[in-house]
Amino acid sequence: MNECTPVMNTGLRGASVASTKISNVDGALGKLIYRGYLVADLAQKASFEEIVFLLLHETLPTREELVQFKLQLKEKRQVHESVFKFMKALPTSSKPMDVFQAAIPLLAQADARVEEKSIESALESALYIIAGFPTLVAAWERIRNGTPPVAPREDLDHGANFLYMLKGEMPHPETMHFFDTSLVLHAEHSFNASTFTARQVASTRAHMYASLSAAMGSLSGELHGGANVRVMEMLKAIDTPDAIDGYIKNTLTTGGKIMGLGHAVYQVDDPRAEILAPMSQRLGEIIGDTRWYELSKALETKAKEAFKTHKEMDIYVNVDFYSASLFYTMGIPTDFFTPIFALSRVSGWAAHVIEERFATAAPKPALYRPGATYVGNYCGPNECSFVDIDNREGD
Amino acid sequence: MNECTPVMNTGLRGASVASTKISNVDGALGKLIYRGYLVADLAQKASFEEIVFLLLHETLPTREELVQFKLQLKEKRQVHESVFKFMKALPTSSKPMDVFQAAIPLLAQADARVEEKSIESALESALYIIAGFPTLVAAWERIRNGTPPVAPREDLDHGANFLYMLKGEMPHPETMHFFDTSLVLHAEHSFNASTFTARQVASTRAHMYASLSAAMGSLSGELHGGANVRVMEMLKAIDTPDAIDGYIKNTLTTGGKIMGLGHAVYQVDDPRAEILAPMSQRLGEIIGDTRWYELSKALETKAKEAFKTHKEMDIYVNVDFYSASLFYTMGIPTDFFTPIFALSRVSGWAAHVIEERFATAAPKPALYRPGATYVGNYCGPNECSFVDIDNREGD
Repeated sequence: MNECTPVMNTGLRGASVASTKISNVDGALGKLIYRGYLVADLAQKASFEEIVFLLLHETLPTREELVQFKLQLKEKRQVHESVFKFMKALPTSSKPMDVFQAAIPLLAQADARVEEKSIESALESALYIIAGFPTLVAAWERIRNGTPPVAPREDLDHGANFLYMLKGEMPHPETMHFFDTSLVLHAEHSFNASTFTARQVASTRAHMYASLSAAMGSLSGELHGGANVRVMEMLKAIDTPDAIDGYIKNTLTTGGKIMGLGHAVYQVDDPRAEILAPMSQRLGEIIGDTRWYELSKALETKAKEAFKTHKEMDIYVNVDFYSASLFYTMGIPTDFFTPIFALSRVSGWAAHVIEERFATAAPKPALYRPGATYVGNYCGPNECSFVDIDNREGD
Repeated sequence: MNECTPVMNTGLRGASVASTKISNVDGALGKLIYRGYLVADLAQKASFEEIVFLLLHETLPTREELVQFKLQLKEKRQVHESVFKFMKALPTSSKPMDVFQAAIPLLAQADARVEEKSIESALESALYIIAGFPTLVAAWERIRNGTPPVAPREDLDHGANFLYMLKGEMPHPETMHFFDTSLVLHAEHSFNASTFTARQVASTRAHMYASLSAAMGSLSGELHGGANVRVMEMLKAIDTPDAIDGYIKNTLTTGGKIMGLGHAVYQVDDPRAEILAPMSQRLGEIIGDTRWYELSKALETKAKEAFKTHKEMDIYVNVDFYSASLFYTMGIPTDFFTPIFALSRVSGWAAHVIEERFATAAPKPALYRPGATYVGNYCGPNECSFVDIDNREGD
């Protein structure tokens, strides 16, 4: 699609900036594809480790490849002790996403090949981050609460080990399973803001850690990864089913948005939300508290009706709408929702960094260096004359 | 220029992605303008603090405004003690750009208003970074060498104070002056890769620290901020004037590039290089060693001739070509060249973050979310069927 596309002040919406083999979002049909496979299939049939392999290596692993791959990840779960020292030096009130954006470059210390410019070393760096990041996240939750970090367990898979390190105890088997599935669902989503950031940083030939730390910063924004936090805050503000009608009415009147409804790309319900919703319900049933699922479900139904009736608008649930109640019901602190998203998305980011730096199919100029339209010459068509400091006029 | 622009796999080269009032690069005429003023004028007549004010507040400050502004910056030079603790926990071999990308989010700790969404709080955050970053950079150079960090001096301006904190002694007056001028020259350059990264992260409503840390990652790439390091490495590899001809010949034969020559935008000599070159020469004369300037000058002359003769190409010096010998002659460690670039560029990044988030002249959709063209369906036009793990074929 090397067509003409208007781009100025559109946030590049709809402009195809690169070709990619990694994933496809069919917004009209509500299909999400990772390297050819429907995410709905993958969520049902594959583990997170298989997805990470698929994203990084372009094919699903054989059983032997998967065994080796899991071993490699397990070896890299331990992080350099200076990372814990760093965390212990921080005020406990530090915002988690700030802490993790800062911590990612520190993972480079364990990586002897970080300065190499090969695809092999970039893949190795990717594994250091994918394996080490859950250790960081769990450690910070414990350090900020004054409890010692829990060492990773070799007998546990990626998602289960994270929950174990976070809580210091084995999670319920179904929680482990649902958590793994939610990691599968959040792993990759084409050129979203944080992924585009990762690619862009990588295009300067910065290393994997620089790229993924930058992506972490992008994800921290409330319009992006911070959205699931805002869904939970909304649910807590609504609090009871009785309050839903009033909340929607107020939103319609003020022209506001219902958090978790609407997406830049999907024009139907997000296929990930369709998988997350029943998991949120089922987990609520297991722990005997379906309150947040029920509230979400009622809000979805009523909001869709209200927007249809009053605004003639179809609105759709996105990935954040049911992940909020799911994560909350799992006992994950609200300010860790975005880090949990990142726990999974680091794999997609890493795949994009590798594609950006090493794919030969679509060579492009060295780095992203867009133009801009200058509209700032206050002094007319020519440059402004410099004015000596004593002759300047204040505001 | 809301025209049609082809963008796919072009690194967005030439595509106007937004309107801006901050700066303009006229690549054909070799003009660089900050908010209406020619950088050649500003470098000669204004201090770095005036430039920071200009970039952030759109006008040059009055004398009273400048006094107040310098006071605000001085108040923010001290950074939270946890930042030093963090640095002391790192291996001394850590790469400076990794350390600084990690450290920027930590500056948020001193900023009580970081969670506010106002332009005033964003400007305040900008000052924390602009004022605090030199303290970090100087501290890391000392900590990695086993010497204690030097506290900032209230009686010194921005650039001079940095050199003082770096060396622990007062720099030569002309060194201070040249350093300040080089900060003016590096402050801003429109939508280069790191600035675009900063804007993009800001577009998600991530805070100033997240945006500027991400930009730091982008700048670390060897195709971007790392370029002045590579110029110095090249000069050291050439070592003597006798070796220039051979080096150029080899470069021409292998199709390589001479570092510091050529630019994505300029089609003439970079106006910044024209100011940096005589400073490099003069500083060499002051310290009695013009070796690196002379080598650069001879390389420029001979390389331009050789590319003209053998490739019918005009090549031009960019900002990195003479900043390398200038910084080296100032006694700045080579791996600090990119951080020195950042020391100045944080001001331009901050101005862009503020424009991205708060400019009302050119409203655009919430965040940068480009499209991409999916070329990855290995199984033909339809999705691939999921294959059970025991039936997969390895590579």
